[in-house]
Amino acid sequence: MSSIYWQEDIETLPRPQLAELQLKKLRESITRALRSPFYGKLYRELNISAESIKTYDDVRKLPITTKDDLRACYPFELLTCPKDNIIRMHCTSGTTGNPAAVLYSRHDLDSWANLMARSMFATGARPADVFQNMSGYGLFTGGLGFQYGAERLGCLTIPAAAGNSRRQIKLMQDFGTTIAHSIPSYLGRLHAVFLENGLDPIRDTKLERLFIGAEPHSEETRLRIQEMFGAKAYNSFGMTEMNGPGVAFECSYQNGMHLWEDCYLLEIVNPDTLEPVPDGEIGEMILTTLDREAMPIIRYRTRDLTCIIPDECPCGRTSRRIDRIKGRSDDMFIIKGCNVFPIQIERVLMRIREIGSDYLIVLDRNDEGDTLTVQAELKSESFTDDYKQLDALRRRIANDLRDEILVTPAIQLVGPGELPKNEGKAVRVKDLRA
Amino acid sequence: MSSIYWQEDIETLPRPQLAELQLKKLRESITRALRSPFYGKLYRELNISAESIKTYDDVRKLPITTKDDLRACYPFELLTCPKDNIIRMHCTSGTTGNPAAVLYSRHDLDSWANLMARSMFATGARPADVFQNMSGYGLFTGGLGFQYGAERLGCLTIPAAAGNSRRQIKLMQDFGTTIAHSIPSYLGRLHAVFLENGLDPIRDTKLERLFIGAEPHSEETRLRIQEMFGAKAYNSFGMTEMNGPGVAFECSYQNGMHLWEDCYLLEIVNPDTLEPVPDGEIGEMILTTLDREAMPIIRYRTRDLTCIIPDECPCGRTSRRIDRIKGRSDDMFIIKGCNVFPIQIERVLMRIREIGSDYLIVLDRNDEGDTLTVQAELKSESFTDDYKQLDALRRRIANDLRDEILVTPAIQLVGPGELPKNEGKAVRVKDLRA
Repeated sequence: MSSIYWQEDIETLPRPQLAELQLKKLRESITRALRSPFYGKLYRELNISAESIKTYDDVRKLPITTKDDLRACYPFELLTCPKDNIIRMHCTSGTTGNPAAVLYSRHDLDSWANLMARSMFATGARPADVFQNMSGYGLFTGGLGFQYGAERLGCLTIPAAAGNSRRQIKLMQDFGTTIAHSIPSYLGRLHAVFLENGLDPIRDTKLERLFIGAEPHSEETRLRIQEMFGAKAYNSFGMTEMNGPGVAFECSYQNGMHLWEDCYLLEIVNPDTLEPVPDGEIGEMILTTLDREAMPIIRYRTRDLTCIIPDECPCGRTSRRIDRIKGRSDDMFIIKGCNVFPIQIERVLMRIREIGSDYLIVLDRNDEGDTLTVQAELKSESFTDDYKQLDALRRRIANDLRDEILVTPAIQLVGPGELPKNEGKAVRVKDLRA
Repeated sequence: MSSIYWQEDIETLPRPQLAELQLKKLRESITRALRSPFYGKLYRELNISAESIKTYDDVRKLPITTKDDLRACYPFELLTCPKDNIIRMHCTSGTTGNPAAVLYSRHDLDSWANLMARSMFATGARPADVFQNMSGYGLFTGGLGFQYGAERLGCLTIPAAAGNSRRQIKLMQDFGTTIAHSIPSYLGRLHAVFLENGLDPIRDTKLERLFIGAEPHSEETRLRIQEMFGAKAYNSFGMTEMNGPGVAFECSYQNGMHLWEDCYLLEIVNPDTLEPVPDGEIGEMILTTLDREAMPIIRYRTRDLTCIIPDECPCGRTSRRIDRIKGRSDDMFIIKGCNVFPIQIERVLMRIREIGSDYLIVLDRNDEGDTLTVQAELKSESFTDDYKQLDALRRRIANDLRDEILVTPAIQLVGPGELPKNEGKAVRVKDLRA
């Protein structure tokens, strides 16, 4: 177990061989996909088969699959095997209409658990670690996904599930938790509960690593989390449609997420033209499953915006890295003619010492047109009713934001804990303009 | 897969060989237990070793282990192996002080998943089934326990988790769920949501089997559940201290729960004297793990009251059956000198057509001594404000209860849904006498 790799052969496979492997697995996936009602009809109409793929560029001949396709295929239209061969279903949380459902064979769950173990191992996690999963369980893939992966790796797993911060803290202390997984927005609240109980997570826990994902967040948020917990925070990327977590994960260098290219085919395209963008340029990620038996998904529009990090990683893994998720091609909002991503606003706020971890962007309309208001919580130690001081802070934040997004927002500062809290993923934008 | 057994050899092992196997595994468990700080100290003081066990009667030489022992051993004092060898922790929900924590090696999780698969298979579940787990996940063993077992068996598993009844119903319909697992008190509420949405679970689902457990419930409750859902309801017994679910389970004959004696040693004793009671007589169950590597527990006082069903089961399994849990030796309450178990009251209530599935027993005290009040919800169709009719019903219930428990309670009838609902297990007794 002295290697830094979980599967050295595959993780360090030279890129020409990796590309060959990908094309071989893509052809197999197309053959399998043809057995599903959805791809079967579509590909026969377009005359697509495994033979259509001879070079990497041929990938672009394949049609895009969208989330609406997945919803229309609910529950079984993407299935390539008898129902008896599937042993699990997960689905997205969609509030209206059908969700997107993913069906897993035994091979698929095994492959997923292996990728999760590989991901965690790459950060430095080892069987002696104690892993506390503060993610929701059930249909949400962050629960069972991390559970199976951490067990495969051999950690002592604590399936704490979401919420109940006092119990989370007790478990961390009693079992000597060294690694925890959480959505980033929960960690600020957890830290507050530590302080309320006279505890300091740096002094009073053995936490060394945090896995954070499922919500776009800025580098500034990561740095704050690391500072609060005295632990390294590693970015994790995944989505239910692609199994769940374990699609891409940072290694110990924390310099972008290795996307496991033996199991996923990666493209970054211009969201308008769907043409590929050069490495280093931000675009929308298109992903294809290469190792999924029951339900391959080919050229899926993730709506997630990121870029390929062009240089090689010193860790020796040959899979390319993607940068943190910059937002979603469908969560961008337009205000006074400017395209703005919520993550740009977060980045500015998190650089300001006086501001806590919760904020809310409110878009509204008045007689003069659209309005942009940023509500932000002050940290306890910065809380004051000195109007002059607060006004100076407001002006400073407004200026910093204008420099970033080219629009000057109204700033509302509120006390710690005063913004509404949600169960699950944090809501960062409220658009009242409809 | 034409056999009715998951593991025919072990499930039909003749009893003399089963007893030999048990003694062999008990001796191994004692040897392992000696490596833990708790049993090591205790057994050395009492001069106990594997050699102490020569016959079945020698089991009674071993000291009892209590829940307080487990709490005092939290978190690691019962562990027999290095922490690196354990890959999961579950714990009881205890409201004050430390919970009882159970630590699992890879062997232990494997053995547990196998027992769960064996249990479900015995009811008639097969790989073609669609299994919806409506249990909470996380640290509660009903989630991951059933999940791993159903995957082992090969069902399509839907990890729906607890709550969100409308989504439960949608998933049942969309995926053609044939088996669901739930605590019994939730099923009444789920049925009400079916009706509210103009649906009938018998007509509008493919449900064939329900697994019910984790709460003591009466045969009358089971019959009502079967009638509501048009599905067979199988009793399940387990507890976190003994891994979780899968300790005992009904087979297709639904005539008591086969306790998997190759993995658990069963005793039924008088709760006061701890002397064994004859088969067929109710007593407290004492259980010993026989297949647990990381954390054997020997002669655990479960506090659960049941009896051994004396005759053989027509299914051919040789493991003895226990009757449904009759209550707990510590949830019995004494009122006007009578010992009463909540389950006795439930049994009477569930025989009365006008009464719904929720009830609450309130114990209080006034100038004249202790009072017993039973609050019960009327079914929608029985709801009325005709005082004479209600009064007659109240008198009828009070008489039936007096015949059962020898005390005449006050009866309060309330409208459907008016009693407070709890997340998780239902609260059935409120004792205000302290």
